[in-house]
Amino acid sequence: MNFSEIVNQIKKKKSYLCIGLDTDISKIPKYLLDFDDPVFEFNKRIIDTTKDLVIAYKPNLAFYESQGSKGLQSLEKTLKYIPNDIFTIADAKRGDIGNTSKMYAKTFFNTFKFDAVTLSPYMGKDSSMPYLEFDEKWIILLALTSNKSSSDIQYFKDSNNKKLYEHILIDSLDWSSKENTMYVVGANRIDELNSIRKIIPDNFLLIPGVGTQGGDLKNISLNSMNDNCGIIVNVSRDIIYSDTSDSFENYVRIKTLEYKDQMEEIMIEKGLL
Amino acid sequence: MNFSEIVNQIKKKKSYLCIGLDTDISKIPKYLLDFDDPVFEFNKRIIDTTKDLVIAYKPNLAFYESQGSKGLQSLEKTLKYIPNDIFTIADAKRGDIGNTSKMYAKTFFNTFKFDAVTLSPYMGKDSSMPYLEFDEKWIILLALTSNKSSSDIQYFKDSNNKKLYEHILIDSLDWSSKENTMYVVGANRIDELNSIRKIIPDNFLLIPGVGTQGGDLKNISLNSMNDNCGIIVNVSRDIIYSDTSDSFENYVRIKTLEYKDQMEEIMIEKGLL
Repeated sequence: MNFSEIVNQIKKKKSYLCIGLDTDISKIPKYLLDFDDPVFEFNKRIIDTTKDLVIAYKPNLAFYESQGSKGLQSLEKTLKYIPNDIFTIADAKRGDIGNTSKMYAKTFFNTFKFDAVTLSPYMGKDSSMPYLEFDEKWIILLALTSNKSSSDIQYFKDSNNKKLYEHILIDSLDWSSKENTMYVVGANRIDELNSIRKIIPDNFLLIPGVGTQGGDLKNISLNSMNDNCGIIVNVSRDIIYSDTSDSFENYVRIKTLEYKDQMEEIMIEKGLL
Repeated sequence: MNFSEIVNQIKKKKSYLCIGLDTDISKIPKYLLDFDDPVFEFNKRIIDTTKDLVIAYKPNLAFYESQGSKGLQSLEKTLKYIPNDIFTIADAKRGDIGNTSKMYAKTFFNTFKFDAVTLSPYMGKDSSMPYLEFDEKWIILLALTSNKSSSDIQYFKDSNNKKLYEHILIDSLDWSSKENTMYVVGANRIDELNSIRKIIPDNFLLIPGVGTQGGDLKNISLNSMNDNCGIIVNVSRDIIYSDTSDSFENYVRIKTLEYKDQMEEIMIEKGLL
């Protein structure tokens, strides 16, 4: 999926919502455990009830790998089930080099058919380049994450007060573009958005940390959007575990609609619709 | 496996060699492709012919995940096949937080029964802590990697000329110990070893980059060893792809013996045996 297709989907659906398919088999409605593949059955129902309201799904690989080879089968089926016009993100936070990065890129982009993969920037450009050889595929670099101890590392400063995460943004501008690279910025990092948007005014940001993790959707959106919307906001647990009864899909839809309606309002306020 | 068990294995086997099981199905001897699980059959033969000469095996997850759910089955079988007294490292370079890190930790330590997992330090302490709750299991943090562009990030300096990788070593000392944490240092980073050993004199280093990647075993060993040996040197391609005939195991054993004999000599020179 390319840049303008993403922007078009956002405007068409009046939503910049991504649902995190962090499917934990111990948290899904009990009746699903009677199926052959409970994880896929859960995801299928989430997708059915939300696919007209979201522009992206983001399975975190940890939840699938924890089930061994069976988990990867659930993931493969889930990816096949997601409609083609919805952006898919492998939340993998990989970061390796050369041959190994090529293997990961093939895995995520060819085997599983993801549109994008999240990457850790610690090994530099080398670990991203193999992914950028794929047409209309994306890397999403960790820039400033929402967890507490990230500041111990990501706020490490040089003699000009430039922070590590800013250095990483600047470094990546040399070898990537807004057509193939997005950045992860946690929803609680609102004070840094000004500095981030100065460095990367045009790239999409993937913003986790709204919902259960407490980030305020309106505040973070108004402070980070650009003329192409420029942000994808991810919500996981607050949506997918909003209910555990046999009719959980209804609650999931209501919760998703709340987010979507709020996003539509924000986009109108920002003059994007 | 705990610290002293690793040291004992090294002294007993007179070897600090780790073989990287980076098994690429396109590179293994062709006759293996007739088996149900060629990747496992290859690994099995490598293990059979080297298990008395090495103290660790390190499968890189990328090679297994690239085969989808079938790849994870090969990995599961491989882990079960490795003798219990050999240290096993999941080269995964993961780095996530909270719930997700817990999932990965369970995956690597409980599902697959690895002894150790490599982690990216970019998200800080939070991403390591869930792994450290497992008894006699290990994290191996990326410190200074061997790839070219790593210096763009890992040599980022503060106003006191402290480099990012040094900052990460120092930061990790607050929440980890030599009993549960090792560090990855590329074999080509020999000029930095003095500085690294000043910060972490007692921790094990995992050193990749010898062999195909060109690092000099003797030089790097003599400059990084401590009284407990303190290093595990990984060789992948130079050993596992040393021949592609039907009798490749013989060549693999000869190559592994060369490394092992050199290591024994170095350990004697260093007074460790």
